[in-house]
Amino acid sequence: MTSDAILADLSVVEVSAFVAAPMGGMTLAQMGAEVIRIDPIGGNIDHGRWPLAPNGNSLYWASLNKGKRSVCLALNTPEGREIATALITRPGEGNGILLTNLPASGWMSHAALSAKRADLIMLKLTGNHDGSGAVDYTVNCASGFPMATGTGGDPVNHVLPAWDVAAGLYLSTGLLAAERARRRDGQGREVTLALSDVMLATVANLGYVADVQVNGAVRPPLGNDLYGAYGKDFPTRDGRRIMIAAISGRQWKAIGKATGLSEKIAMIGPMLDVDLDDEGGRFEARHAISAVLAPWFAKRTLAEITTAFEGSGILWGPYQDFGQLVREDARCSTANPMFADIDQPGIGRLLAPAIPLSFGGPAVRLPPVPAPRLGEHTDMVLAERLGLTMSAIGKLHDAGIVAGAKDH
Amino acid sequence: MTSDAILADLSVVEVSAFVAAPMGGMTLAQMGAEVIRIDPIGGNIDHGRWPLAPNGNSLYWASLNKGKRSVCLALNTPEGREIATALITRPGEGNGILLTNLPASGWMSHAALSAKRADLIMLKLTGNHDGSGAVDYTVNCASGFPMATGTGGDPVNHVLPAWDVAAGLYLSTGLLAAERARRRDGQGREVTLALSDVMLATVANLGYVADVQVNGAVRPPLGNDLYGAYGKDFPTRDGRRIMIAAISGRQWKAIGKATGLSEKIAMIGPMLDVDLDDEGGRFEARHAISAVLAPWFAKRTLAEITTAFEGSGILWGPYQDFGQLVREDARCSTANPMFADIDQPGIGRLLAPAIPLSFGGPAVRLPPVPAPRLGEHTDMVLAERLGLTMSAIGKLHDAGIVAGAKDH
Repeated sequence: MTSDAILADLSVVEVSAFVAAPMGGMTLAQMGAEVIRIDPIGGNIDHGRWPLAPNGNSLYWASLNKGKRSVCLALNTPEGREIATALITRPGEGNGILLTNLPASGWMSHAALSAKRADLIMLKLTGNHDGSGAVDYTVNCASGFPMATGTGGDPVNHVLPAWDVAAGLYLSTGLLAAERARRRDGQGREVTLALSDVMLATVANLGYVADVQVNGAVRPPLGNDLYGAYGKDFPTRDGRRIMIAAISGRQWKAIGKATGLSEKIAMIGPMLDVDLDDEGGRFEARHAISAVLAPWFAKRTLAEITTAFEGSGILWGPYQDFGQLVREDARCSTANPMFADIDQPGIGRLLAPAIPLSFGGPAVRLPPVPAPRLGEHTDMVLAERLGLTMSAIGKLHDAGIVAGAKDH
Repeated sequence: MTSDAILADLSVVEVSAFVAAPMGGMTLAQMGAEVIRIDPIGGNIDHGRWPLAPNGNSLYWASLNKGKRSVCLALNTPEGREIATALITRPGEGNGILLTNLPASGWMSHAALSAKRADLIMLKLTGNHDGSGAVDYTVNCASGFPMATGTGGDPVNHVLPAWDVAAGLYLSTGLLAAERARRRDGQGREVTLALSDVMLATVANLGYVADVQVNGAVRPPLGNDLYGAYGKDFPTRDGRRIMIAAISGRQWKAIGKATGLSEKIAMIGPMLDVDLDDEGGRFEARHAISAVLAPWFAKRTLAEITTAFEGSGILWGPYQDFGQLVREDARCSTANPMFADIDQPGIGRLLAPAIPLSFGGPAVRLPPVPAPRLGEHTDMVLAERLGLTMSAIGKLHDAGIVAGAKDH
């Protein structure tokens, strides 16, 4: 990777599947780290995950593994494991780092790997803290959020795999923290993260555990209303829908001003004996506020609302499905410096994001890089990182120990 | 902080409100960094955010600011700003780092601060990449997810502020990456992150943008069903509800085995002409699979299901509201090494999480630390970090430039 990249001279081996660990690795790759994803020959269990392109290639896999190097090894053979071990434990200050969410036992255990490199950093994602299995779906149901989502009745699962995404970013944070510590004290570390701990910590960090403990309160479902302040969704005249939110006093006053409804809204305070200058008062009076606002939105199209709210300081946005997001939202296009068009092998032209962090202007944000084809970098990595000769690599191919892109 | 902490000798100044930036800072504090949160006297706009304790103290604020130092300054005075600037730009290798989600103009602009310390690292969270405002609610509505959540009809907002949580963890990742780079090249950086870019990148990273571009497909709402594999929620005999998921072939076979329904399920393949050995086939046949499984769950209590699934390798979990999570789930208790009871000033005894990352066993995971009282560390930080005398600090108090905990 380019030497002026933010994470130049950091090299991570990833043995992973699905969302969390691949996203952790991709985040590092997007800042210029070398991330070598090792898969079994033929690909790991996530290689065919939906959504798929018409030719069967996974859009999911391609989207979650951008900018990595792909190496395919027969991990069910001693020789394949030996090569994997050599890649994970190879010398060098920024090397010796493994990121995995697969069962890390046997050759891939911390004990076995740290015997080869004492200062190994190993990040291991598990389902639960006792090592038992869990995935986003089975963690989320227990979180309390599905019972507080929607308008009541049956619980509603989120569709965004939010715990996986958060876990991936805890992994990137934890990896950089452990590597910083290693440069200070020379010590390797076995860093573990349980997906359900990410959920539990987050529920507690947002105050929901304390609310139960202190108040015996369980937050009920409120539909699309904000909790503890004013915010709600409204249908528009042209069949669209918008979300509006006010947390600060300034944001709240902007709503009355831009809609011309300040005076009518002001009648609600004395009518319901609430203080509308207080966010809690606005929450209590939310149904009355919404009753005053609803006709204003119902009489206007999304375009008219957009014009009326321009420069008003109101926090609002339109609802969009994924299609409308891609086709109508300028933020989801190359007009946004985070995005660029890439040619994704096996799929074609795609709009792809860089990392959302910009390190001081576009010049130091690496442009998005396609995902590799499975095994694309097997030969290159074995030659450059392990110093194997082309003849030795050829023999490994012949023996079925390694595979390249053309073998898949 | 203890010198053997993972992030020993890292000191960050945070000027923030609400979820994302405070969570980024707390994540660093939980690994042993010194995080000095500067607030205006009386607290920032998030200091009274719901949920509240009966005495009006914010459980939300206390939960999101654990382990930080609180300094209160009259930021509307030149003297208050001068002290803030001195704290942000003070010399030292691990210092000179600002994390903020407030409008960073004037004295808090990168230009003004980097004039005082050329290698300043400044992380700045904005709503949109053009600097305009957005919050989790108004970003989420545009993401496509609310339109794909639930069973169709009106869009359903998530209740977890998922974009804020992800943004907080991008900030902790980005801060450590920028600090690593500064140690290599001596350069400061202005690191920017837009909340809506976190959303856009994530939607794209999960393959939804590619699905629209390549297939013209917009994923429809599927209730609580998994997409592209088998998973669904079921009511139990005792009025509870569980979620079950199978992604790997092993997980799928475990369901038939543990319920004794393998043979009936096997009839579905030829009946619907689908291959149940393929996750996509199981998705297509999901309604028939659910029809076979539903009576099994309806006849059993949650306790009976728990017993039947013990050691089966099935991925499943119960739905819980926040109260059930706190009262019934052993993972949400001090039986989980991530949690400990703390005495939170102004609130009382609380179950609090450490960071979910464990750096090689409980010994190197710092136990949870309460949030500060507002202004609790004003005098200490001014004395220890800026070398002010007690007499000078006393004068600042008298002049209303600084405030301590007893002043609030």
